[in-house]
Formats: sequence, structure tokens, C-alpha cells
Amino acid sequence: GRGAKQDPAITRDLYVSLEEVNTGVTKKMKITRNVVCKETRQMKKEEKILTIQVKPGWKEGTKITFEKEGDQSPGNIPADIVFIIRDKPHQVFKRDGANLSFTTKVTLRDALCGTRITVPTLDGPKVYLDYTKDIIKPQIVKRIPGRGLPYPKDPSRRGDILVHFDIQFPASLTDSAKEILSEVLPL
Amino acid sequence: GRGAKQDPAITRDLYVSLEEVNTGVTKKMKITRNVVCKETRQMKKEEKILTIQVKPGWKEGTKITFEKEGDQSPGNIPADIVFIIRDKPHQVFKRDGANLSFTTKVTLRDALCGTRITVPTLDGPKVYLDYTKDIIKPQIVKRIPGRGLPYPKDPSRRGDILVHFDIQFPASLTDSAKEILSEVLPL
Repeated sequence: GRGAKQDPAITRDLYVSLEEVNTGVTKKMKITRNVVCKETRQMKKEEKILTIQVKPGWKEGTKITFEKEGDQSPGNIPADIVFIIRDKPHQVFKRDGANLSFTTKVTLRDALCGTRITVPTLDGPKVYLDYTKDIIKPQIVKRIPGRGLPYPKDPSRRGDILVHFDIQFPASLTDSAKEILSEVLPL
Repeated sequence: GRGAKQDPAITRDLYVSLEEVNTGVTKKMKITRNVVCKETRQMKKEEKILTIQVKPGWKEGTKITFEKEGDQSPGNIPADIVFIIRDKPHQVFKRDGANLSFTTKVTLRDALCGTRITVPTLDGPKVYLDYTKDIIKPQIVKRIPGRGLPYPKDPSRRGDILVHFDIQFPASLTDSAKEILSEVLPL
């Protein structure tokens, strides 16, 4: 009614995996709330399922509001329930907008003498990078276009996979190894 | 008088060097403003010097407010003038709170075979790091305690210098060099 106040919004985190963000997913969230029984006019507990259609590419922080789904009480407007999209940590990728970052360990030997790198993707086939001829330098980032997450506003387009290289240096070297290296490597 | 409105605050950036933040500095800022002449009651331009004592360690974003130093006009309260501390880019250091970051380039040869690193400081003597025995690995950060900026709330204490190493890999290697490296470097 007029002048009735609304309770402050109730926020709940909704964790989604990168695989779910990649394809989109339907999440059903059970809530329990107090309602006023229309016949008896008494309060009772009610369970309800709220359905959230997580669209492909939705970003962390996206809010989904269910209006007035909080506890009912006489004279009050029930609170809105707000779900906030949160990323579940992923074993392989870190998310940066629509891009996915992947870090691969490479020994210094392989970085200098040549190697092939296998890059996983979220759904499609793996990507193979040929570094048999090029030296892998620290801080280079190899961009694999279009293999990241869909853009939420245009899911036909996708971000990239960004490959980072964590070059593993030897813990120690013998004096004779150092001598050879100092002859072979440029000043 | 009662009911008079104040003009919105005027903000101006005040750029300080890291050397100035290190020691503290007095900045004199000239402003030109409209004032109402008390005798003639007419508007005139007035120049004024505002003095700002930048204390050691003040952070970027620190605000200094001079109340009612904006243009005078009949019936209005002059605006406040707010100076906001901004860091001048520094040739050697980047600032991170009270810490100073310093990045030094090292050839891969020196990183593996041994070298000495000279680290400049803002005011005191240089610091020498001995890496003749230890391998410098990418992503290591060497912390030199107490040689950063003073803490604004306790200028007798100082942050650290954080030394980062940018290891320069060779652009290319001959096949014979790669063969030798693959024998010397661990798998």
C-alpha cells in the first residue's frame, strides 16, 4: 500500500564455471521465505525455485534481480532478491573479460632449443603452437584469436586465448656448465 | 548570507616528483580569481599565491582544499579550490604506495653465469646486489628494505625498493649453439 517501505535487497552469490559461462546454463535456486497465508492471514514458510538463465559470456558481477521475492510481512514490501554472478576458479584458465589466460611451464632448455606447446580450449580441439624454430622469451604473450569466451552482447563473436610462458630456470649450474654457457650465449 | 549557494569545487592537479615526495616540498600555486572590490563594489581580477606543504610520503590522490578561494560574485559563496597530488613519471622508479619498483635489464648470460646489479636510490648511496653465485630467475623480486618512500603517517619509517629483473633472451641462436645448450641445460 501507499507509504509501505521495502526491505533492503538480499544479495546472493551465484557461482558459475567457465564451461557454464561458455555455453550458458540454467540455474535453479531454491529459496525459503515467509509468506502471509491468504486464508488464515498467518505467516508460513514457503519454498520456491527461482530460475536464472545465465547467458553465454556473462561477466562476473552481473546482477539478476527477482523483485519482491523476500519475506512477506504485514505492511512491508518484500525485499528484492539479487543474484550476483561469480566465477568458480578454473584449473586451467583465468578469465579476463571475454579472454582466457593460460600459463604453461616451459624449461629454459625448451624455450631456447625449441619445443611444441599444447593449449587446451574450453570446448573445441586443442591448439598446437610450434616453437621449434623460435625462441620463447619471458613476457611474450601468444594470442589465439576467437577461442575465448563469447561476448555477452554478441555471442557469435568470441574473445581470445592468451598464452603466457612460465620459463623454468635451473636451480643451479655447475661451474663448467656456466663456462660453456658464457661462451655460447651472447653478451 | 543565509541561503547562498556555493559554487562546485574547482580541482587542479598538482604534479610532484618522487624526489619531492621523498623529502617533502613547498609548492606555491598562483591563482587568478574575480573578487568584489570593497570600495567600488565592482568586480576585479586578483592574483593570489596558495602555499601547499607537501609532506614526505604523500600519496597520489591526496587532496588539499583551500576553502572559498574561487571567484567571488554577489550572492554566491566562492568555490573551494582543491589540489590533487599526482606523481610525475620518474625515469628510474615506479611508485607503489611507499615502495619503489625498479626494473633492471639482465642478459640471459649474466642471469645464468653470474653478475652484480647496481640499484639506484632516491637520495642515499647505491645498493649493490651480488648475483655472482645465484641464478637470477624471471619473476623473482629482490626486496631492499627501508630504501623506499617514507610512510606519510610515520615518516621515520620507509617502504622498500623492489628490484625486478627483465631477462633479455637472445633473438636467435645457431643450430650448433642450440645443440650445446640442450646438452648443458637440465631437461
